[in-house]
Amino acid sequence: MKQEVSRMEDGRIEGHMAPSVVSKLKIKNECIRVVLAETLCTFIMMVFGLGCVAQVITGNGFFGDFFSINVGFALSVAMGVHVGGKVSGAHMNAAVSLTMCVFGSLRWKMLPLYIFAQFLGSFLAAGTIYLIYYDAIYNYCGGNFTVSGPKATAGIFATYPAPYISIYTGFFDQVLGTALLLLCLMALADQRNQPVVPGGEPVGVGLVVLLIGLSLGSNSGYPINPTRDLGPRVFTMMAGWGMEVFRAGNGWWWVPVVAPFIGGIIGASVYKAFVELHHPDLKSTKTRSAEDPECVPLEKCKNGSAEMSV
Amino acid sequence: MKQEVSRMEDGRIEGHMAPSVVSKLKIKNECIRVVLAETLCTFIMMVFGLGCVAQVITGNGFFGDFFSINVGFALSVAMGVHVGGKVSGAHMNAAVSLTMCVFGSLRWKMLPLYIFAQFLGSFLAAGTIYLIYYDAIYNYCGGNFTVSGPKATAGIFATYPAPYISIYTGFFDQVLGTALLLLCLMALADQRNQPVVPGGEPVGVGLVVLLIGLSLGSNSGYPINPTRDLGPRVFTMMAGWGMEVFRAGNGWWWVPVVAPFIGGIIGASVYKAFVELHHPDLKSTKTRSAEDPECVPLEKCKNGSAEMSV
Amino acid sequence: MKQEVSRMEDGRIEGHMAPSVVSKLKIKNECIRVVLAETLCTFIMMVFGLGCVAQVITGNGFFGDFFSINVGFALSVAMGVHVGGKVSGAHMNAAVSLTMCVFGSLRWKMLPLYIFAQFLGSFLAAGTIYLIYYDAIYNYCGGNFTVSGPKATAGIFATYPAPYISIYTGFFDQVLGTALLLLCLMALADQRNQPVVPGGEPVGVGLVVLLIGLSLGSNSGYPINPTRDLGPRVFTMMAGWGMEVFRAGNGWWWVPVVAPFIGGIIGASVYKAFVELHHPDLKSTKTRSAEDPECVPLEKCKNGSAEMSV
Amino acid sequence: MKQEVSRMEDGRIEGHMAPSVVSKLKIKNECIRVVLAETLCTFIMMVFGLGCVAQVITGNGFFGDFFSINVGFALSVAMGVHVGGKVSGAHMNAAVSLTMCVFGSLRWKMLPLYIFAQFLGSFLAAGTIYLIYYDAIYNYCGGNFTVSGPKATAGIFATYPAPYISIYTGFFDQVLGTALLLLCLMALADQRNQPVVPGGEPVGVGLVVLLIGLSLGSNSGYPINPTRDLGPRVFTMMAGWGMEVFRAGNGWWWVPVVAPFIGGIIGASVYKAFVELHHPDLKSTKTRSAEDPECVPLEKCKNGSAEMSV
Repeated sequence: MKQEVSRMEDGRIEGHMAPSVVSKLKIKNECIRVVLAETLCTFIMMVFGLGCVAQVITGNGFFGDFFSINVGFALSVAMGVHVGGKVSGAHMNAAVSLTMCVFGSLRWKMLPLYIFAQFLGSFLAAGTIYLIYYDAIYNYCGGNFTVSGPKATAGIFATYPAPYISIYTGFFDQVLGTALLLLCLMALADQRNQPVVPGGEPVGVGLVVLLIGLSLGSNSGYPINPTRDLGPRVFTMMAGWGMEVFRAGNGWWWVPVVAPFIGGIIGASVYKAFVELHHPDLKSTKTRSAEDPECVPLEKCKNGSAEMSV
Repeated sequence: MKQEVSRMEDGRIEGHMAPSVVSKLKIKNECIRVVLAETLCTFIMMVFGLGCVAQVITGNGFFGDFFSINVGFALSVAMGVHVGGKVSGAHMNAAVSLTMCVFGSLRWKMLPLYIFAQFLGSFLAAGTIYLIYYDAIYNYCGGNFTVSGPKATAGIFATYPAPYISIYTGFFDQVLGTALLLLCLMALADQRNQPVVPGGEPVGVGLVVLLIGLSLGSNSGYPINPTRDLGPRVFTMMAGWGMEVFRAGNGWWWVPVVAPFIGGIIGASVYKAFVELHHPDLKSTKTRSAEDPECVPLEKCKNGSAEMSV
Repeated sequence: MKQEVSRMEDGRIEGHMAPSVVSKLKIKNECIRVVLAETLCTFIMMVFGLGCVAQVITGNGFFGDFFSINVGFALSVAMGVHVGGKVSGAHMNAAVSLTMCVFGSLRWKMLPLYIFAQFLGSFLAAGTIYLIYYDAIYNYCGGNFTVSGPKATAGIFATYPAPYISIYTGFFDQVLGTALLLLCLMALADQRNQPVVPGGEPVGVGLVVLLIGLSLGSNSGYPINPTRDLGPRVFTMMAGWGMEVFRAGNGWWWVPVVAPFIGGIIGASVYKAFVELHHPDLKSTKTRSAEDPECVPLEKCKNGSAEMSV
Repeated sequence: MKQEVSRMEDGRIEGHMAPSVVSKLKIKNECIRVVLAETLCTFIMMVFGLGCVAQVITGNGFFGDFFSINVGFALSVAMGVHVGGKVSGAHMNAAVSLTMCVFGSLRWKMLPLYIFAQFLGSFLAAGTIYLIYYDAIYNYCGGNFTVSGPKATAGIFATYPAPYISIYTGFFDQVLGTALLLLCLMALADQRNQPVVPGGEPVGVGLVVLLIGLSLGSNSGYPINPTRDLGPRVFTMMAGWGMEVFRAGNGWWWVPVVAPFIGGIIGASVYKAFVELHHPDLKSTKTRSAEDPECVPLEKCKNGSAEMSV
């Protein structure tokens, strides 16, 4: 069979199979396309992300530290955005999907599909990392899979709070973390402000996640994502860690499931209230831009004097 | 109520509420807009930045080190620039605002508003980090909030000099650090030289701050910003650390308040004196560019010979 | 002899020799050009990459750690892509070349040339690093070149598995690592999805390699590349480490030679199956884009309702 | 006096003084302009770079490590390129300037000016870091400024070889390091290959330097630059470390002065020989590009068959 050769560039591939085969395999239902892409990108983010944690924990400090997990999870998110990208939007986070529904950027009927895909991708990624790191985990803990204690390994998959924080602090921690995530995502995307470079969205989103890990990571491991946390937690329950994964940390498990939804909406609202709502109308902006594109904020300040001196 | 759905892209949101609601909430006074944006972006920078320090200090070295603070503060600045961006300019630093007034890019009457917003944002961020990390700080120091000693925690919020530096060295350190900051910011923005990629300004500014932290961080923690330092210092005074925050380091507190103003003006002046003032006039540049866009500096050298040999 | 001076920019050089000399030296056979470029870029990647490992191992932890190797190898790949770039495509990895053949982006007859160049570049790079670090290696191990044990140095050149993993886990590890590599490379290049910024391909590819090192590096050192591993292994066999380099790890050597070929094809197939095959036809995309460029996936969802409420 | 307010953007400044003042201060002689810019950018690179080393050495490991020096020096180079940028080209390295002369991109008569400016900038930067870190250095070594031994501080300013390498290995190390530097710089700038993103040159050059530090840093501290090393070495000789700075390491000082000149020419030549010389003529490239922009290398391969099968 002949093949269309489309192009070779930088070691990357875009060969297409013969049109007839393509048409047969091609899925035209957009819901299935979205679910496929959202599942794959969440899987990619989570396989890479959980792998970073597994490598550090089982490596006794030789193969990385908290910083390498931060960098790795940030890149995992960036790669997830590249993979899901323009097909599903690559939310990979039920709190992001809910916030988009609340502010009218996603239909409510799509929400269950996104959450299903995100949970499925996270669950499958946890299973993959379990298989790949089974020997390492077994060697590290001597075959005794525990949720707490000096050789605890459940933290590879789901998050557990630091022993010293109260459930209230933990809840506030997750609300704030997710609020900052959504606030920054909105700023990165606000084309009337200082958005990220076109095409740089995946790296920009990754840098936000890196920053949250560097600054709000020690209290509870920054889940800031209900599906990222619950999928792998259910997997560990089934894979040998038992019901303790739900009891640990005074029943911590529901905090990263609930708090991010609240935080996401708050963060997006704060950005709107402080910045987005008050952008000048596009029409007037354009007119003014033509006159003096840079001095807009100050030129229009009625209280400021126009005189200046050195 | 119906809603306008504007667009979905990369998990980011730009839904707008119904026009009538928008008009009511919209603030058209530019001074208030600028203050809101400058407060929010300074708050974002400082919440992230102070969080990085809090995580490292209370984590006993497990959750990061000086390098992770450097990277985290740099990203904090970058996110602040994304948030305040084109609305307020995202100075987030009174020394930047003053330098802009001195060189005529900001009206003097706006300066108090900027400083007020920057102080307010820094103060509120210190309060937020205090709440989120209260359990961790309490656990780390056993409830004994001290400014110095082995379990000192005041350094989470404001800067304190190394015990071995004199007040003169500290002052020079802050003048030099802020001078380098402003000098680099001017180079990054100089469109007739080698500016940062369009849209890459936030990351570029962040990299400058990272570099200052990596190279001038050990003497006094690189405040290089009066409001970044004073706001959280006042907060810690009120929140349990007491007046010692002003007495420590031989009354160090005024150095990061005063020295950056001087350094900023010096740095901007040096860049102008060595590079910016001597750019060829735009008119002649354009003409020459058309002939040979790359060889400008050498082609025009009257003393250089035009002959070349191998 | 006179010379054409072409341009000076940012300290970089593009002087050309006189046309007559150029014509004589110029190679017009594309196969030789491709082999030269692929050899050079693989050499560059491997000299830098192996140098990072040599520095860390011989430096007793003073000159870096696993993280610095990850960052260094990622930048090595990025520089290799800059060097081989548009001439050979800078595969630098036989698994990439094979996958391109399978999907019709590279002629099968070119495959042996690519593998030869990649092997040669890797082999020469191992020799260069051996010479540069000979004193350091000798000093580190006291002249006793061993493959295992506390002062083992063979791991500078080729990969060896962790003592606790089975050959099955190692094989799966290499299949998964290479599959993720190819899957991400395809996503980065998919112009109908969320590709990397134009011109940012080298850094994008480097970030993928960094991420694999951070998340799948501890089991076996992430070779994910047959020629990267075999060339330096053969060199060490000849340079004093002996046949033990092939016996170590239960005869590990064939795993990074075979598994990446399988993984590469699987990864590329998964991306096609989940995302690429289902992209709307270009024609219809264009029409729809003109109407509403952002809402494509959801607008077309037959099952979703068009109503929305707040 | 009135002032022209030009624009405010991202906290950066471009105010101009009144035209009459500007004209008086403006230097129109291009040689002086080039020397001013080259001195300033070398000063900036060296102040930041030496500061990174000073912070790590005097901080007893608390304020960074070899990795943070690598990252810091790379950013220092990037900022230097932003500052000197389009005015002098920001070579900041006599080996770069010489290579440009050899390949006809810089007039030989300019070479002494560049070397003078680079030496001056490096020397002044060493003096500045000496002043800023004097207290820290004094505290670290107890006022005993030594070139070797456990509290040696001369390595803050100039490079010294590892005790185990021979002078031959050190020389080869410097030739190779500078060759790789120039080879990569040429690849980053080769517009017919895979160059760095337009405007991303400073960061691209910084990444090359980071990579050299990560992979070829442990033998001798990667000077790869005659003026970067000699200027601060002369300063330390005068500032209290004495003639020992020239005797240490078996008279190491001349190696980083001589070897980089040789390495630079070799590296540039290798890139030309393997890649640049063989680029298809621009004319023919353009024609072919119009037909099929991506498949150029393979389409033209006379030995390859045009048939393909799956």
